[in-house]
Amino acid sequence: GVLKIGLIPADGIGGEVIPAARDAILALGSALPKTEFVTLDAGFEYFTRHGEALPDETVHALQQECDGALFGAVSSPSNKVAGYSSPIVALRKALDLYANIRPVLAVPKDPNEKPSVDLVVVRENTECLYVKQETLTFGPDGREARATRLITERASRRIGLKAFEIALARPRKHLTIIHKSNVLSVTDGLFRDTVKAIPSQHDKYADVTVAHQIVDSAVYRLFREPEIYDVMVAPNLYGDILSDAAAALVGSLGVVPSVNAGDTFVMGEPVHGSAPDIAGQNKANPIAAIRSAALMLRYMGFSDGADRIDAAVDAVVRDGSVLTPDLGGRSGTNEVAAEILKRI
Amino acid sequence: GVLKIGLIPADGIGGEVIPAARDAILALGSALPKTEFVTLDAGFEYFTRHGEALPDETVHALQQECDGALFGAVSSPSNKVAGYSSPIVALRKALDLYANIRPVLAVPKDPNEKPSVDLVVVRENTECLYVKQETLTFGPDGREARATRLITERASRRIGLKAFEIALARPRKHLTIIHKSNVLSVTDGLFRDTVKAIPSQHDKYADVTVAHQIVDSAVYRLFREPEIYDVMVAPNLYGDILSDAAAALVGSLGVVPSVNAGDTFVMGEPVHGSAPDIAGQNKANPIAAIRSAALMLRYMGFSDGADRIDAAVDAVVRDGSVLTPDLGGRSGTNEVAAEILKRI
Ligand SMILES: CC(C)[C@H](C(=O)O)[C@@H](O)C(=O)O
Ligand SMILES: CC(C)[C@H](C(=O)O)[C@@H](O)C(=O)O
Repeated sequence: GVLKIGLIPADGIGGEVIPAARDAILALGSALPKTEFVTLDAGFEYFTRHGEALPDETVHALQQECDGALFGAVSSPSNKVAGYSSPIVALRKALDLYANIRPVLAVPKDPNEKPSVDLVVVRENTECLYVKQETLTFGPDGREARATRLITERASRRIGLKAFEIALARPRKHLTIIHKSNVLSVTDGLFRDTVKAIPSQHDKYADVTVAHQIVDSAVYRLFREPEIYDVMVAPNLYGDILSDAAAALVGSLGVVPSVNAGDTFVMGEPVHGSAPDIAGQNKANPIAAIRSAALMLRYMGFSDGADRIDAAVDAVVRDGSVLTPDLGGRSGTNEVAAEILKRI
Repeated sequence: GVLKIGLIPADGIGGEVIPAARDAILALGSALPKTEFVTLDAGFEYFTRHGEALPDETVHALQQECDGALFGAVSSPSNKVAGYSSPIVALRKALDLYANIRPVLAVPKDPNEKPSVDLVVVRENTECLYVKQETLTFGPDGREARATRLITERASRRIGLKAFEIALARPRKHLTIIHKSNVLSVTDGLFRDTVKAIPSQHDKYADVTVAHQIVDSAVYRLFREPEIYDVMVAPNLYGDILSDAAAALVGSLGVVPSVNAGDTFVMGEPVHGSAPDIAGQNKANPIAAIRSAALMLRYMGFSDGADRIDAAVDAVVRDGSVLTPDLGGRSGTNEVAAEILKRI
């Protein structure tokens, strides 16, 4: 059959890095089934022109035609814009992509060396404060805004299962549950306890060691002793912050990929944002998007293809002579992409 | 008159570092009015013995007898304990200590050098998810927990005013508003817009430059370019995480002080936790508590005394020969405290 991949560059540098990721997939040639791409609309730029950030056609095309997808990045308006709501949050929800999986790896200079950072943030992707249930009322002292933070047993269990599955497949088999149950004893207590209970319900995870840690202390220790972490599982917002924090340890957000994964669909997405300051200047690092393509392929079952892309990226990073400015290099998006393609 | 300071060592290393902080205050001698101390109960250890974490007597003593206070640290039980609720969160609320002010400074080796990190996290201290309004219900798919995140205009304005005041008194006069309004447009939109509007209502802040930044990106940039920050103002939970993140940049949580400040009362509190793993072993770094005493004195109007304590700590850190293990030293809590006292 034909593999169909939806491409949603969205805003800013999305339009530069997503084509690079597509080309990396194409470079795999016959290692994959015949692959077609369809470019789909979404984003803040699209919103300013058409009044909606995520057209129905995009969601339908992904649901009905596509086997996987790659998302670029979205711009966040710096002031409130009536009617605008983040299309990436909406897409994760619409496709029930409940796991945001973010591997963070420092490629060592010597391939035989142990990487100084080698962890995966497994972020719950559908609830927590991201349910966006907010209200505004007027009290005696002015406006009062409230947001609901939702944590369900069901979502905590399915993200926990995903995290145990990922931990089991890694050499260290270690999982750290991130929470703030010293303040949020009900919501984060439910998250922590639900994830913690999984090994008692599933024998196959018996070999995974489990730790738990309060989010503020986890961010602190992440910077001081990143080697203590293997897989971290976290409610949505903590996972968002933790993965940016971890990215700071490996040189640049420009190298950190992710996938948004559900039970039947997977969408790759670089962890970086739309970087309007460098958009259109051939400066964006394409590595995060290219690795997101590899990760998408991996979760679609094409691990050989994924390995080839990752090996090519590793080689270019190790070589060090063709890198974008965020990694201290002097090359452009296109040159870095071409260098990677050459090695795939 | 007599100055009365409440001491609440609470749990773990609190019992070692709070006496050191008291001694630093005493070492100021006649630079302060006659000072008396009263030791007050609170904490998880107290809870396990008496069934309450924050006895009314402690709150009353602070309100009715004390001019200021020093809090140690609290232990967080690693499992849910019925009836236990964090006494520090309760104290902040009971005394309406709405601003948690956390200066983070890397003391440069050469006193003429610019510190690599010199910022203040101004954390809202009474609301956000810390209102602890949580519910648990049973849905078709199991348990569902919800927490309310409250952001009011009133609390945002008063913390914003505090932050502008602090920024105005610093050489760089730069304030960064931290938020996540790309997801939480109502709550974090209210926080951001309320703080942002302050200079238009108060001419005296015209010289303060204002930036705003999304929390995940702020944590990332904090690690990559800490020099871009001067004062950061944030809702409660983001401030909690950001200050731990900033602490990782200056060697150790063991050196980062804070005050919980209201309009009429101030309570110093080291940012570190109760560190049960090293409690009672003369290993805890007393610097955070000693600097918290200085900060408390500063906010009580005794800036000369505060300066003397801070200068003594700076000298000991610069000298480098008497430090606790967290800073790479081999000395104990008592020796470090004695070394500081000698120089006050
Ligand atoms: C753009 C924003 C809504 C998004 C998020 O918070 O999830 C981003 O930070 C991310 O991590 O993908
Ligand atoms: C102990 C805990 C409740 C507390 C908080 O979250 O405020 C601590 O992390 C702090 O920063 O003082």
